[in-house]
Amino acid sequence: MKRLDLLGAISEEPDRLTRQFAGEAMRGANDAVAEWMKAAGMVVRHDNIGNLHGRYEAETPNAPTLILGSHLDTVRDAGKYDGPLGVIAAIAVVQRLHDHGRHLPFAIEVIAFADEEGLRFSSTYLGSRAVAGSFEASALDRFDPGGVTMAQAISAFGGNPSRILEDRWQGRLIGYVEVHIEQGPVLEGLGLPVGVVTAIAGQARYRVTFKGSAGHAGTVPMRGRHDALAAAAEFVLAVESEGASREGLVATVGQMSVYPGASNVIPGGAALSLDVRHPDNRIRIESTRQILERAREIASRRGLETTAELLSDDPSVPCSANLQSLLTKAIEALGLTPVHLASGAGHDAVPMASLTEVAMLFVRCKGGISHNPAESVTTEDVAVSIDVLGRFLEQLAKA
Amino acid sequence: MKRLDLLGAISEEPDRLTRQFAGEAMRGANDAVAEWMKAAGMVVRHDNIGNLHGRYEAETPNAPTLILGSHLDTVRDAGKYDGPLGVIAAIAVVQRLHDHGRHLPFAIEVIAFADEEGLRFSSTYLGSRAVAGSFEASALDRFDPGGVTMAQAISAFGGNPSRILEDRWQGRLIGYVEVHIEQGPVLEGLGLPVGVVTAIAGQARYRVTFKGSAGHAGTVPMRGRHDALAAAAEFVLAVESEGASREGLVATVGQMSVYPGASNVIPGGAALSLDVRHPDNRIRIESTRQILERAREIASRRGLETTAELLSDDPSVPCSANLQSLLTKAIEALGLTPVHLASGAGHDAVPMASLTEVAMLFVRCKGGISHNPAESVTTEDVAVSIDVLGRFLEQLAKA
Repeated sequence: MKRLDLLGAISEEPDRLTRQFAGEAMRGANDAVAEWMKAAGMVVRHDNIGNLHGRYEAETPNAPTLILGSHLDTVRDAGKYDGPLGVIAAIAVVQRLHDHGRHLPFAIEVIAFADEEGLRFSSTYLGSRAVAGSFEASALDRFDPGGVTMAQAISAFGGNPSRILEDRWQGRLIGYVEVHIEQGPVLEGLGLPVGVVTAIAGQARYRVTFKGSAGHAGTVPMRGRHDALAAAAEFVLAVESEGASREGLVATVGQMSVYPGASNVIPGGAALSLDVRHPDNRIRIESTRQILERAREIASRRGLETTAELLSDDPSVPCSANLQSLLTKAIEALGLTPVHLASGAGHDAVPMASLTEVAMLFVRCKGGISHNPAESVTTEDVAVSIDVLGRFLEQLAKA
Repeated sequence: MKRLDLLGAISEEPDRLTRQFAGEAMRGANDAVAEWMKAAGMVVRHDNIGNLHGRYEAETPNAPTLILGSHLDTVRDAGKYDGPLGVIAAIAVVQRLHDHGRHLPFAIEVIAFADEEGLRFSSTYLGSRAVAGSFEASALDRFDPGGVTMAQAISAFGGNPSRILEDRWQGRLIGYVEVHIEQGPVLEGLGLPVGVVTAIAGQARYRVTFKGSAGHAGTVPMRGRHDALAAAAEFVLAVESEGASREGLVATVGQMSVYPGASNVIPGGAALSLDVRHPDNRIRIESTRQILERAREIASRRGLETTAELLSDDPSVPCSANLQSLLTKAIEALGLTPVHLASGAGHDAVPMASLTEVAMLFVRCKGGISHNPAESVTTEDVAVSIDVLGRFLEQLAKA
């Protein structure tokens, strides 16, 4: 917990925690984490994208590797646990092995990923994409808000932007396991410290618009109106209703703009965001289809036009049944009730799933709050997550 | 129609019609209108607020006065008819009398009001308030966007800001009659060129907020949400439903803001405008009460907080039964079907009603469009409105 507090104070802004990809605060965080990795008996290196690797060798040469980790970058005005918890927990379990002079039948490589939140370049998963081999070189030309290209930022941080392909993992892998705060209220509601993630939900994002007719709020009778906000309101409730119709489905309208937006003018236009997630791709696709069908039905009935622009569509990532089973056994071995839940948020495990089997252990967080300085976990729950991860390594060594 | 086209070209902006209170374009418009008033046999003067008065005396001294008129100021990027039509139609009927060398048992004073739209000082009815004696001297300290006070603007236009109280009407009055475009689609729907206004609707304006809990759109299950936008959406539909429940009622949400307003964040807050109008104050008050009760019910059921801040509450202004009756007879005398309708928009007749009996004649406008360059009336309909106003004067002279 002291390490998490210390990392939480390494920020590029004086009064709040903000640590972007390849920035000075990130260098400070990597330096601190590298020391802790070394203290746990690991050999440390940076790759080209800026990920920090700590390697703890197996008891025998040519053994496969298990990757543990999470990310050290943050959103703006972040909490202390989203990302760093997974890195610090991974170092803690290696420290325990090292303290006992133990090595396992597999190597452990702890990776502190350089960019998961994508704050600086509006990117996603730069760090884990580089390791998974799915980094797109075209991203190197992106500019940050200060006019610095990603290639320049990588060079300044010490990497070689033309050699990022070499960051791709080489060698045999067992899998990738990540400890992370839940960012939701499920574990808190169940009164449990940790849970096993079954899948990372797929996500569809759309921009939906309604176009009606603006008019004078005092002079156009109700029955002659084509009010775009009224149509949008029906749509918001349809999204909510569809989201609540299936277990594990979440559907959200987070943005809404109304045009022209004067109190005495009937809205002629409305634009909304739509975000639909479910661990099962078929359910997500079917629910999204139904929601967009409702938009057309609402618009048609009211004599309006509607559009739906697909912004992104990411399939769900299932977690490894085998690794889930070993995590479950580890939880049971500690006398705790194992619970399984899906992740609605994306994680480094998403790109890593294209490289190897993935698994995640969620840790209860207060009020389900994340991406906020109010982010909070208890020392006891973090201890449980480290114990579970340690037991998991034992189970894996036996298997 | 040529005069309306000419006035439509007197603007303070090169590519669109904008004519603010006491500006150079207003001076140009007043100069043109003053010439037309003189040509119609009127004696012309400016008052302190900047209204242009054209007086056509009665056949005998000490007779009462009928005021005709409307306003010459416009909104930004205005149409040509909202305001000027009433002034030009009034001059046209006086011109007819003058052409025949006729005078009536009452004097006619045509007033071209200096400010109805309130664009420059975010005010309302500066011109007609001055005549009605309800001008508030505190308004003189207001600044326009360029930092000029209203008092300075009045002085620059030739008035004496300390003598505006003297603009108040002195002498016996019969009433105030205003010709104006409908700004709504009712007459067009009925296929009629003109209609008699029964009342100018009262208007209540509120700012309504809903406060829930923001949260991650991917990780907070639907059943645990307190989504402020979903509550606001229910409210928008409740407003629409209440508005449609009674003849003559209009209820509008024209503005909506969502906080924090990110596609992947459940809205924690929403703020909306509410505008409710009806010619009958009791119905408006009762409907507004029901709408705000619905807001509380929605918030309570969803576990949110709601507030409703009253921004303005203007009672309805009934038109004179006697003057309405005379306008109706004038319409019938022309072989047209008389129709009565309420005005949902405010007009100079509102402040004038505190001074004398008021009446309004609405003229059909294309698509109900106003406050827009697309504002359009036909030559034939304008001719009808002048004929009706002329017949009305005959009826009034007989009465």
